Amino acid sequence: MAADALLAQLAALVGPAQVLSDGDLSAWELDWRKRWRGRARAVVRPGSTAEVAAVLRCCAAHGVAVVSQGGNTGLVGGGVPDGSGTQVLLSLTRLRQVRAIDAANLTMTVEAGCVLQVAQQAAADAGLLLPLSLAAEGSCTIGGNLATNAGGTQVLRYGNARELCLGLEVVTPDGEVWNGLSGLRKDNTGYDLRHLYIGSEGTLGVITAAVLRLYPRPVATMTALAACASLEACVALLQRAQRHAGAGLTGFEVMGTLALALVRRHFPQIPQPLPPAPWTVLLEIADAESAEHARTLFESLLEDALADGLIDDAAVASSEAQSRAMWHLRESIPLAQAEEGLNIKHDIALPVSRIPAFVADTDAQLAAAFPGVRLVNFGHLGDGNLHYNVQVPEGGNAGDFLRRHEHPINTLVYDAVQAHGGSISAEHGIGALKREELAQRKSPVALALMRSIKQALDPQQRMNPGRLLDEPRR
Amino acid sequence: MAADALLAQLAALVGPAQVLSDGDLSAWELDWRKRWRGRARAVVRPGSTAEVAAVLRCCAAHGVAVVSQGGNTGLVGGGVPDGSGTQVLLSLTRLRQVRAIDAANLTMTVEAGCVLQVAQQAAADAGLLLPLSLAAEGSCTIGGNLATNAGGTQVLRYGNARELCLGLEVVTPDGEVWNGLSGLRKDNTGYDLRHLYIGSEGTLGVITAAVLRLYPRPVATMTALAACASLEACVALLQRAQRHAGAGLTGFEVMGTLALALVRRHFPQIPQPLPPAPWTVLLEIADAESAEHARTLFESLLEDALADGLIDDAAVASSEAQSRAMWHLRESIPLAQAEEGLNIKHDIALPVSRIPAFVADTDAQLAAAFPGVRLVNFGHLGDGNLHYNVQVPEGGNAGDFLRRHEHPINTLVYDAVQAHGGSISAEHGIGALKREELAQRKSPVALALMRSIKQALDPQQRMNPGRLLDEPRR
Repeated sequence: MAADALLAQLAALVGPAQVLSDGDLSAWELDWRKRWRGRARAVVRPGSTAEVAAVLRCCAAHGVAVVSQGGNTGLVGGGVPDGSGTQVLLSLTRLRQVRAIDAANLTMTVEAGCVLQVAQQAAADAGLLLPLSLAAEGSCTIGGNLATNAGGTQVLRYGNARELCLGLEVVTPDGEVWNGLSGLRKDNTGYDLRHLYIGSEGTLGVITAAVLRLYPRPVATMTALAACASLEACVALLQRAQRHAGAGLTGFEVMGTLALALVRRHFPQIPQPLPPAPWTVLLEIADAESAEHARTLFESLLEDALADGLIDDAAVASSEAQSRAMWHLRESIPLAQAEEGLNIKHDIALPVSRIPAFVADTDAQLAAAFPGVRLVNFGHLGDGNLHYNVQVPEGGNAGDFLRRHEHPINTLVYDAVQAHGGSISAEHGIGALKREELAQRKSPVALALMRSIKQALDPQQRMNPGRLLDEPRR
Repeated sequence: MAADALLAQLAALVGPAQVLSDGDLSAWELDWRKRWRGRARAVVRPGSTAEVAAVLRCCAAHGVAVVSQGGNTGLVGGGVPDGSGTQVLLSLTRLRQVRAIDAANLTMTVEAGCVLQVAQQAAADAGLLLPLSLAAEGSCTIGGNLATNAGGTQVLRYGNARELCLGLEVVTPDGEVWNGLSGLRKDNTGYDLRHLYIGSEGTLGVITAAVLRLYPRPVATMTALAACASLEACVALLQRAQRHAGAGLTGFEVMGTLALALVRRHFPQIPQPLPPAPWTVLLEIADAESAEHARTLFESLLEDALADGLIDDAAVASSEAQSRAMWHLRESIPLAQAEEGLNIKHDIALPVSRIPAFVADTDAQLAAAFPGVRLVNFGHLGDGNLHYNVQVPEGGNAGDFLRRHEHPINTLVYDAVQAHGGSISAEHGIGALKREELAQRKSPVALALMRSIKQALDPQQRMNPGRLLDEPRR
């Protein structure tokens, strides 16, 4: 009866067609990797910021919890409801307008449900670059990108989603609208609410729109591969490339030998321009002048690095198609891992300077404790972000191995991350997956501060409860 | 008696020589522009983070308010005590170590009391660049830079102090230490406490140390001047320069005709390479390749701009000395203003695209309402940050004019800023100066969120009370 009253009120606010409580709701209740399946009291799809505010006021009046969802592409179970059947799933996908592009200010104002690729294209149509780029860009949304502070492949030059955001529009748990859609690069008028909501994973309020930074489109983008004998050499090459190319260096990815061996095994048709090496680096330069200038820059960088023994071999793409093929090689690693079978993923960050020691230590510990495990290591070295993945031993029973060893392997890896001053979540967030890990590992002072902020901004603990922070104490 | 007990306890914690309550304390009680004079219960100078924590625990036990201070170079009265004689002035200047420089990670860890120029020099000694640079760099401190989110002359390329900070160490009002000295470029493990403390002007806790981003030093830095007929042309030139030079463009300053006329009048010895123009732009390029490359880039940019009528004249510096002289010209404007007499300063930010309309509207309104006022307009156009200053009419009684007109002039200017979507404080902060203005002009929803956060993190309202936000309600 109370449930009916809530649904009837929600239907009156957003229209009956936008309140779903019957039939197959798995598009919203099940995450895309099929790891978390929840049950929503209803899926509500408001069509405007005013409707989001009205929905939140209604949920506040009923004391009902709200889980916000964008493209449902998250990796940590932060955007699907829990199994209680009591939570309202607030889908933002109907708020999908590009409200404005201001070329002279190099900004665009976009609604939360706009798909990243649509926003990228709108910027491109205006002759500009929105430099946020990640694997899920065809279906993830701007709101989700900001709620999780998404990373991706261009962080080295342009920063995370956080650094690309100048302003936000947010609806508070009580349904008030904060219009912080500033397109300002400087604004020292009080606490930075924007940065508090970014990365808060829907636990403090609902992001409904954002002002994003745009950049001039580079005239040319060029890619190269380089073979390194060690991670130390990769780090030295990174330093050299940063000095040499300045802000022109937009990508610096490493790929371990096993990562590329798996691609060779499962996707033999994908060209690998360099013979196997302990580490293969993908470098990208975006150039404001010309392709020729980028090539000259690459050639002098790589010749010097070869002469100084930092690299053993290199290949510069001679066309855009070759550049794309090099990126395709990098992007095929997770797919090759999936073909190879079950594995454990770690999305970790470390100070760049600590990466060689971290990998040497942790590889050795894992090999000693779990004989036969295979380390598929790759990632955004320029940002200190490794996808330090563990593939089960060749030929073994993968399911069995994971059941017995997944937890102790995670513990070993996260202990090592902590010992080297790193983070257990570089770009994916905490959600449901790492909430308990975070409660164990984050500084108690930081956790207490986070809980105070949560209590202050969501005193009824109704926004995405049980995600990021502990279950609410009732 | 109670006061004695507090001072005795503080002396026991940090040593009697570091607790000052007698004699001339104006170095701490009076701001450098002599606009705010307070009276401290004591000046306390801890020598370590542990001592800061002990001092804050002691002040918490006594229920005493604490005002943090770095180099005392603030412009808004945020770092001096009020007149009550009850507040402890916590001076951070003895925490001045550069704790570490990590060249491979491009970071440095610096204590709050370290003078900015000392930190810049330490980075330079390691062959790296700390790109925060502002007029007060010889005496301002890193802690103050972060507490106020300082801006300066390189924001266009490197961002504000906020964007240069990867991690913080903070002591809470209760004297707990949060060690968030992460050197990570990616870390999605909960609310971003770092960004909450940055720009909070000492009202939430005390920053004791920070990890700052460093950059490779550019091989060459080169400056040019260009004459524009209108602000519209300046904005078009900015867009052109950003496309042409990419991230190489590190500075883009505008100087209005009256600003340079005052420099010509009061400092005739300072060379002005271009004849008077409605607007003169100073452009700076930092180049990772060579001075020759920077020059070629400038020449092709300026030739194209000349051919297309965006600029009427230009001069490229032919040496480092000439580059410095061009910056000296820009930096002499505030001094020339001071020579000319009393004036009203406005540190405002606008979307870059709105600047021409804002200036045209506001100039016209001021001229109509206050006949004879002279507009000395200059600033960081690339960041949308104008120092939109008002000089009293020539020959009039300046003190008289200000007494009658300062408040209505501020109201007119800030109304116009709001109408154009701008900020009343771009880089100087709020402090005591603009607190009431902020309470009037900031969105009530944002103010309510800020007050909730303040209440959550400083429930006794003891950290820099009455600054930034309202006086505590007692």
